[in-house]
Amino acid sequence: MNIHELIRELREPAQSKIVFLVADGLGGLPLEPGGKTELETASTPNLDAAVRDGVCGLSTPVLPGITPGSGPGHLALFGYDPLEYRIGRGILEALGINFAVGPKDVAIRGNFCTLDASGKITDRRAGRPSNEKNAAAVAKLRTIKVPGVELFVEPVREHRFVLVIRGDGLGDAVNDTDPQAVGVPPLAAEGTDAASKKTADAVNRFVSQAVEVLKDQGAVNGVTLRGFARFPKIDKFQDVYGLKAAAIAVYPMYKGLARLVGMDILDPGQTVATQIATLRKVWNDYDFFFLHYKYTDSTGEDGNFPAKVQMIEKLDAAVPDILALKPDVFIVTGDHSTPSKMKSHSWHPVPTLILADTCRTDDVKHFNESSCLRGGLGHFQAQHLMLMAMAHASRLGKYGA
Amino acid sequence: MNIHELIRELREPAQSKIVFLVADGLGGLPLEPGGKTELETASTPNLDAAVRDGVCGLSTPVLPGITPGSGPGHLALFGYDPLEYRIGRGILEALGINFAVGPKDVAIRGNFCTLDASGKITDRRAGRPSNEKNAAAVAKLRTIKVPGVELFVEPVREHRFVLVIRGDGLGDAVNDTDPQAVGVPPLAAEGTDAASKKTADAVNRFVSQAVEVLKDQGAVNGVTLRGFARFPKIDKFQDVYGLKAAAIAVYPMYKGLARLVGMDILDPGQTVATQIATLRKVWNDYDFFFLHYKYTDSTGEDGNFPAKVQMIEKLDAAVPDILALKPDVFIVTGDHSTPSKMKSHSWHPVPTLILADTCRTDDVKHFNESSCLRGGLGHFQAQHLMLMAMAHASRLGKYGA
Repeated sequence: MNIHELIRELREPAQSKIVFLVADGLGGLPLEPGGKTELETASTPNLDAAVRDGVCGLSTPVLPGITPGSGPGHLALFGYDPLEYRIGRGILEALGINFAVGPKDVAIRGNFCTLDASGKITDRRAGRPSNEKNAAAVAKLRTIKVPGVELFVEPVREHRFVLVIRGDGLGDAVNDTDPQAVGVPPLAAEGTDAASKKTADAVNRFVSQAVEVLKDQGAVNGVTLRGFARFPKIDKFQDVYGLKAAAIAVYPMYKGLARLVGMDILDPGQTVATQIATLRKVWNDYDFFFLHYKYTDSTGEDGNFPAKVQMIEKLDAAVPDILALKPDVFIVTGDHSTPSKMKSHSWHPVPTLILADTCRTDDVKHFNESSCLRGGLGHFQAQHLMLMAMAHASRLGKYGA
Repeated sequence: MNIHELIRELREPAQSKIVFLVADGLGGLPLEPGGKTELETASTPNLDAAVRDGVCGLSTPVLPGITPGSGPGHLALFGYDPLEYRIGRGILEALGINFAVGPKDVAIRGNFCTLDASGKITDRRAGRPSNEKNAAAVAKLRTIKVPGVELFVEPVREHRFVLVIRGDGLGDAVNDTDPQAVGVPPLAAEGTDAASKKTADAVNRFVSQAVEVLKDQGAVNGVTLRGFARFPKIDKFQDVYGLKAAAIAVYPMYKGLARLVGMDILDPGQTVATQIATLRKVWNDYDFFFLHYKYTDSTGEDGNFPAKVQMIEKLDAAVPDILALKPDVFIVTGDHSTPSKMKSHSWHPVPTLILADTCRTDDVKHFNESSCLRGGLGHFQAQHLMLMAMAHASRLGKYGA
């Protein structure tokens, strides 16, 4: 049975509030066998206090051994099967620059390239233009019109931009036009079905006009397109859970992922303090709060173990302000692990805490990998965390009589 | 989503090497409540040292409570869903005698029986003939020809043989001809679909000729057939994982199971020492090595607790020679448990170790059931072990962006 249908069937109204504090890339590794992880090294008195009253475990975002990107990692936390709901590359690129993609959109990753007089690619990245040059070229592309569709062109950085085509009945089964080689012209777009042929036709018209309007842009005189992706069909968070949800995230990608499932996207400023202030301000307006904390991931990606430790301690310091609001359910987890040792996302399971009045407490005393391993939640699938959140929030009735 | 497709999509080339040391029937039970298992009794200094740097857990081959045969147990370890891929009895019997079954084959278990003058069975096992008598009768059966198919008859032991029918479009939905009773004649074979009718027809022609050629074989004058099974449609190991794989197994059944998924079958002699010598010899030629160790199972099946302890200690002694080759990923596990107390395979989960540079170490200090229970891998499904092996071998890229 589909879990979302089950939730729709069982869910019950309540006044309870759920806070999901998602520390991106939370889990780590010791630098040497037998050593301590970042979480085990950090001093986290507030999380440790919460852990003593709550219940802990380790969350598997997708499957054992599978390293998730941010998309699947967050979808799983929001209770969506990350193997069923796949978010295409173009959509993720658009989400990453905070473009509000919608159900009629096909989003595409664009690269500026350099073409010679015969139309062959001489530089697939157009000499990596400055962001200013990129913006100037994007301004030219924005003058292009193609009948029957709306076009949106957005700068990313250097040679990268996003193209969004909005229209009825557009498909995304279209090949990349980037030939992944120099000395050859960009490929024509071709669609493998009627809807995708429509997209391909619009794109080919866009590309031929692009060459015209970019004539005076020096090395930035061509474009290639990759990762055609339609807005995914996805159940809305509120329809599934009956929860009015607010996303309090600083970075565009995470706002975008929350927008994808229909959460309200707030503008919480740039710091944890302003995120908490935002939480406090809208506390009475929502049932569910997705707080995203980026820095446990970025320091892990940098391979900076002491910085990740510091960012964990900074996160810990924010916990009392959240708990002061008395959420009925307070969850701390991550979308995946990002061990400093690996300088990348990894497949290792993620330490997770549920604090609620209905927790069966375990004897976990510290919020870290080795302690959570022995916690009351055991190993569980991330996509089941929302079920437990709903249950602890008194929002799920009995299944069967 | 199909996991094999996911692996094909995510896998990345690497030079890393993976060793799977499969100790058949590894897990055990204490003889008395509160006592020690075979692994807990054995002195395993080498495995214990590996465990301290690695990560442990308990593997469930099929489902909790489900006791696997060797087929499902190994398929799960090779990353095949043992409930999806079912290897029929006839195929397993053929694998067990090292017959190289292929995609056009239907394999069948045969029994010699004794028929009276009216064709009724008087002994379902033909008086358990000697292996010599069996071989003589098999030689007679090999003279039988049936048009349109190739026939292969192979001795097993006593009253048992294997019949393989090779041909185009043969089905295996055919009833057993053994009536499981004396005083009645063998049943005719009947197929429930066109392809299986073709098989049944060939088999009935074989059986009627068998009675003729066995006339001078005394009590061994009839045959019954059971367990009709077609060669299974199964993804090849190398196609799924991109790993060049070698099976270093002494016993035919395990060579056969490895052949089924397309591994190269080496001839490693008869001892652990010659297996290790083979491993060393082919180390540069393969990415993945399946080392099968039988004696933890056979001593368990014998109900010989001290002998199983001894065989575990012998296995432990082989570990340093394997680790001297510096595999990137070293895994020790079993295909199922075989507690001496039960003298049979059992459903109990199997102690498992992963040793690699990217392990999140737990505080497990001994390789046994009670310690692995608290290990960092928790309880996991055996069919997910290959995912973790691939991840630790740097052979799986990120899922989603």
